[in-house]
Amino acid sequence: MDRSDVADYKSLMRITRIRVVCGLSLLLLSCGRSVADHRDRGLMPMPAKIEFAAASLQVDGHLPIMIVGHSDARLQRAIDQFLQHLTAYTGQEFPHGVADTPDQAKLVIRCAGPGQLVQTPDEDESYSLRVTAEQIQLNAATVVGVLRGLATLEQLVQPGGNGFVIPEVSIEDKPRFVWRGLLIDVCRHWQPMAVIQRNLDAMAAVKLNVLHLHLTEDQGFRVESRRFPRLHEHGSDGKYFTQEQLRKIVAYARDRGIRVVPEFDMPGHTTSWLVGHPELAAAPGPYRIERRWGVFDPCFDPTREALYEFLDAFFSEMTAIFPDPYMHIGGDEVNGKQWEANPQIQAFLKRESLPDLHALQAYFNRRVAAILNKHGKTMVGWDEILHEGLPQGCVVQSWRGSESLAQAIERGFDGILSSGFYLDHQRPASFHYLNELQPTGGSPSDTRPARILGGEACMWGEYVTPETIDSRIWPRLAAIAERLWSPASIKDVDDMYRRLEQVGHALDAIGARHRTNRGRMLHRLAGRHPIGALQVLAAVVEPVKFYKRSAARPYTNHTPLNRLVDAARPESQVARRFQLEVRGFLSGRSADASRAIRRRLKSWRDNHQALMSAIRDAPLLEEVAPVSRNLQLIATLGLQAMDTIESDQQPGADWKAGVLAAIENAAGPHAEVDIAVIATVKTLVESVGSAKP
Amino acid sequence: MDRSDVADYKSLMRITRIRVVCGLSLLLLSCGRSVADHRDRGLMPMPAKIEFAAASLQVDGHLPIMIVGHSDARLQRAIDQFLQHLTAYTGQEFPHGVADTPDQAKLVIRCAGPGQLVQTPDEDESYSLRVTAEQIQLNAATVVGVLRGLATLEQLVQPGGNGFVIPEVSIEDKPRFVWRGLLIDVCRHWQPMAVIQRNLDAMAAVKLNVLHLHLTEDQGFRVESRRFPRLHEHGSDGKYFTQEQLRKIVAYARDRGIRVVPEFDMPGHTTSWLVGHPELAAAPGPYRIERRWGVFDPCFDPTREALYEFLDAFFSEMTAIFPDPYMHIGGDEVNGKQWEANPQIQAFLKRESLPDLHALQAYFNRRVAAILNKHGKTMVGWDEILHEGLPQGCVVQSWRGSESLAQAIERGFDGILSSGFYLDHQRPASFHYLNELQPTGGSPSDTRPARILGGEACMWGEYVTPETIDSRIWPRLAAIAERLWSPASIKDVDDMYRRLEQVGHALDAIGARHRTNRGRMLHRLAGRHPIGALQVLAAVVEPVKFYKRSAARPYTNHTPLNRLVDAARPESQVARRFQLEVRGFLSGRSADASRAIRRRLKSWRDNHQALMSAIRDAPLLEEVAPVSRNLQLIATLGLQAMDTIESDQQPGADWKAGVLAAIENAAGPHAEVDIAVIATVKTLVESVGSAKP
Repeated sequence: MDRSDVADYKSLMRITRIRVVCGLSLLLLSCGRSVADHRDRGLMPMPAKIEFAAASLQVDGHLPIMIVGHSDARLQRAIDQFLQHLTAYTGQEFPHGVADTPDQAKLVIRCAGPGQLVQTPDEDESYSLRVTAEQIQLNAATVVGVLRGLATLEQLVQPGGNGFVIPEVSIEDKPRFVWRGLLIDVCRHWQPMAVIQRNLDAMAAVKLNVLHLHLTEDQGFRVESRRFPRLHEHGSDGKYFTQEQLRKIVAYARDRGIRVVPEFDMPGHTTSWLVGHPELAAAPGPYRIERRWGVFDPCFDPTREALYEFLDAFFSEMTAIFPDPYMHIGGDEVNGKQWEANPQIQAFLKRESLPDLHALQAYFNRRVAAILNKHGKTMVGWDEILHEGLPQGCVVQSWRGSESLAQAIERGFDGILSSGFYLDHQRPASFHYLNELQPTGGSPSDTRPARILGGEACMWGEYVTPETIDSRIWPRLAAIAERLWSPASIKDVDDMYRRLEQVGHALDAIGARHRTNRGRMLHRLAGRHPIGALQVLAAVVEPVKFYKRSAARPYTNHTPLNRLVDAARPESQVARRFQLEVRGFLSGRSADASRAIRRRLKSWRDNHQALMSAIRDAPLLEEVAPVSRNLQLIATLGLQAMDTIESDQQPGADWKAGVLAAIENAAGPHAEVDIAVIATVKTLVESVGSAKP
Repeated sequence: MDRSDVADYKSLMRITRIRVVCGLSLLLLSCGRSVADHRDRGLMPMPAKIEFAAASLQVDGHLPIMIVGHSDARLQRAIDQFLQHLTAYTGQEFPHGVADTPDQAKLVIRCAGPGQLVQTPDEDESYSLRVTAEQIQLNAATVVGVLRGLATLEQLVQPGGNGFVIPEVSIEDKPRFVWRGLLIDVCRHWQPMAVIQRNLDAMAAVKLNVLHLHLTEDQGFRVESRRFPRLHEHGSDGKYFTQEQLRKIVAYARDRGIRVVPEFDMPGHTTSWLVGHPELAAAPGPYRIERRWGVFDPCFDPTREALYEFLDAFFSEMTAIFPDPYMHIGGDEVNGKQWEANPQIQAFLKRESLPDLHALQAYFNRRVAAILNKHGKTMVGWDEILHEGLPQGCVVQSWRGSESLAQAIERGFDGILSSGFYLDHQRPASFHYLNELQPTGGSPSDTRPARILGGEACMWGEYVTPETIDSRIWPRLAAIAERLWSPASIKDVDDMYRRLEQVGHALDAIGARHRTNRGRMLHRLAGRHPIGALQVLAAVVEPVKFYKRSAARPYTNHTPLNRLVDAARPESQVARRFQLEVRGFLSGRSADASRAIRRRLKSWRDNHQALMSAIRDAPLLEEVAPVSRNLQLIATLGLQAMDTIESDQQPGADWKAGVLAAIENAAGPHAEVDIAVIATVKTLVESVGSAKP
């Protein structure tokens, strides 16, 4: 598919809407049933080019499939998985039926070839999809293209007809960026196989194509090394992936069109290596696995040749496990303290005419890049590696700001953007969604800017367990996936949230646990009490943002993550809806909007008493009492503001300032959560006395 | 533990309560926190002898364990699983820490020996458990006893202290019955490994010890036979357990102290055998896998010697997979039509002086029992096998009524009760809970009546898929497990429901899907609409009872089970609470009770309109409209009754009859669901005009 085929999305949607409206009336005539006006249901990422028509294909258990052209075991497994997902979405069985001729087939897959033996960013992921009332036709150049088409097809299934339908549609699709990733840090908190596998399933559903595994850290060495078994034996508390498991992850990912890029962070963030191998360090040991979070001193000694021999042997072993052409060496947050304090290292700097410690790290990076190069790998590192003398061909992953991405590109390096995609910052989906990858200057183009490979969302592991990690990744990552796949012009935030709601349910159906685990956690917090009041509170609080949590208490990886802050979603959907309601009310003051706002405010005001009865014997909830009381106060003030607005009173001059100060005072945070409705209540208060709309 | 050790539960509880109350005040003094008055939280089955005291053991991630006496790999795996469950319950990590001396240990396990190499009903499952503020001591004669003790220990974990505690307690426990089972029918709807494994986990949590796998049926032959591969190749649609999977199930069950008893139903219910082996049939083929539900004609020909040679070889193969000393041959529902119509069989009857077809089945059973006996197996069959001449030593499983159990015992056979334990009948937990196994006459004894091995709940497969089966089994099976394990005197229904609520959450936490899948199903039904209104309706409807569903439409195993009836719980807890509220109100008429009842009735009355907006484009909900309308009507009439009662009016003579008739008329069923609050609204109406309490 050529760039010229990709019509402007907005004008397309305009045409589509007209067509859908016409089609609807036809359908209404023909079957007497109304049809949803959003026939895309929960499509995300939105295809590059899509055109709906009026008819629908009935989806029942009978879906004979014919493959034309290339077929292989991976494609067959993909079809099995697709049918299992259909069962999850519809509650009906879908036996794997095979059609012998295209006429008998309900789904015809035309696949031109297998695609790359080892998937790279150059893999052709494009596909076209055409659904009519009789048949689905999916065409792709590669198996990965078929996978992407099946993922779209799944998202099109929706209630209709006698049960479920796929709407008539014509799609031409291909990604804007070739590197669309998720980093999972399995070091700070261990994440076992099941977590990786279910997140790979969910990643494939939104067409992501890179799993970046952060495998070594101060807090844990999470890979079995047979060459240097002291690494995982002494550095992991027994929590590591065996080589067999890693191979299984790589194969599982490949079945989903996902590359696995391993990261071995060095020369800093290496405490766990040094527990079993103190001889690699720039200062004498012994070392112990780090339990706290932060930046620590332990560091490799880059002046010793033995280090490079060790790394050569280690990377040789890892190369046999990870076939991906890229290998990530971290390179971030070297504080240089051990280097400064070590006279031999200082002597080395002089001898080699290295002006400073940055130059020493650059020297280390050049040596490591050469080793990786020998093993056929391209080196990737965090943006700290962007020193003078970084060998061409390396890839820079920008995390400290998008400026470093611009710099890397200017200097001829390929770049990946992670700044603005940090899931652990607990920011709203809309923030990540609008994090455009195009360097500043010039309006975003739907074609990929040169040298920007794509982006990666980062799920750092300080505050996530296997129980909570899904809720920090999903559904927000789906919005990032759309930024990375879809044309830049697709950026309507309200429409994104409408679809994200549906995508969240779909991901739940195929095994992601962002919804189910939350319910369990609230039940645990409530003990033997009903969870109603706790749910009301939990729905309007969010974990504190950025790195505020680390300041709240001395966390280690032994600290239980089982409190309200862990059950709270990064983004309160109730707060978002409340904001929309208030915005609508302030611009029009309908009685309906007023009732809805007052109902919410009253439920928050009256919730405190109900919750307090549960808190009496639920110790994990004790810290929540001030939050609940503050919500009560804020809601009471919000109701006052509503009364004042609706009676068109002009309160005394001090009223507004006093109320705003009271709200500010109630903002906390307590218990490491923010009350997410505060900003909107402030808006209400601030609007008091403004001109009537 | 001797019978004399088991004190009367009620007097025990009386003492315990006093102790707890005293203990509470001490604890209140010492830590200023109130403590739940039900320190048993969600214990089920209730131990034979239990005594709480005042203190608590703090449960944090540090739980060093010491094993004294016997240890083996099974015990180690049990400890790993126990620690994983603790993580699920508390949200904290529990590394497997080992203590070298009892002083350092927080959990001391004293295990006298491994127990039986192949578990039988004679296995010693008793244990004693003592928890103090410092240490847990668990003593058992066997590994299975330890498993039972760990299951109790898990259930004792509860919010308290700084997080979670186990209350100080002393327990002596052993089961009343030695055969406590669940039958899962994997034939009518296929149930894959994951379903079996998660249900084994849940069974172990409530101390059940037999998984009865119903492996062959008219609708499917679900076992790989290498000796006769046409059986599974032609009889299963590819849905069967491989021998490797079956061995895995047996091992997985053994790790949980659960025996696996396979059932190969014969001579009727054998259509799926005959697809690949028509020569076994009493009428000429060809045969096709049955898709409907019911009793069908196809049947083995018991007059042919080749049949017994075939079965001998087949059972020989199965014996190598299933080590259990019992093997189940079904034997139910032979309609005899093929036998009647076959002249050779009629001639055989004459030649062998067999008076009728029952005698022919008895002949068949004797032959099969001899074959099983040769392979070291005891034959079990449904109560139809209780003909004259049934060899002594066979076991009779009573399903048609408890009279057959009494008959079997009278005639010297061991018996298992399933009548009254059919989960597919969708009856309330209380019904199953009060289904006493003691034959009528004489008050139930806490010791096991002679020859009654125990009971089995039956999960027949006509109306369950992998998605819905958990909701039909759990949590009701936990109440049955208590009937089978605990002393007969433990039968307080309200107390059972209080604990069942907690057990339901605990089972959810360890992987049972009765809660999570229901939420997904409601979202699917609602499509892109919020599910609030649907939840209100779903919470007060129940699937129709007994076999009524089969009369509602022509079901086959292709019929999707994705409707409201499938998402509805067998027992509405909202309806139960409403009933308790109305009962309370009618006996006391408090303003609080009135408010609560009116709130519920209004929410049901007002729900219809909200739901109707969703139904417009959710085809699977269309059938639900009359149910919702009827709920609205019934709630409106209930509110009328409340008004009348509270105003102390005496309505006209016809009022009550008219209202009751209107309710009866609205009772339906529609959409194969019952409105579960109808009986209670009727009670309200009937009480109008009664004397004021």
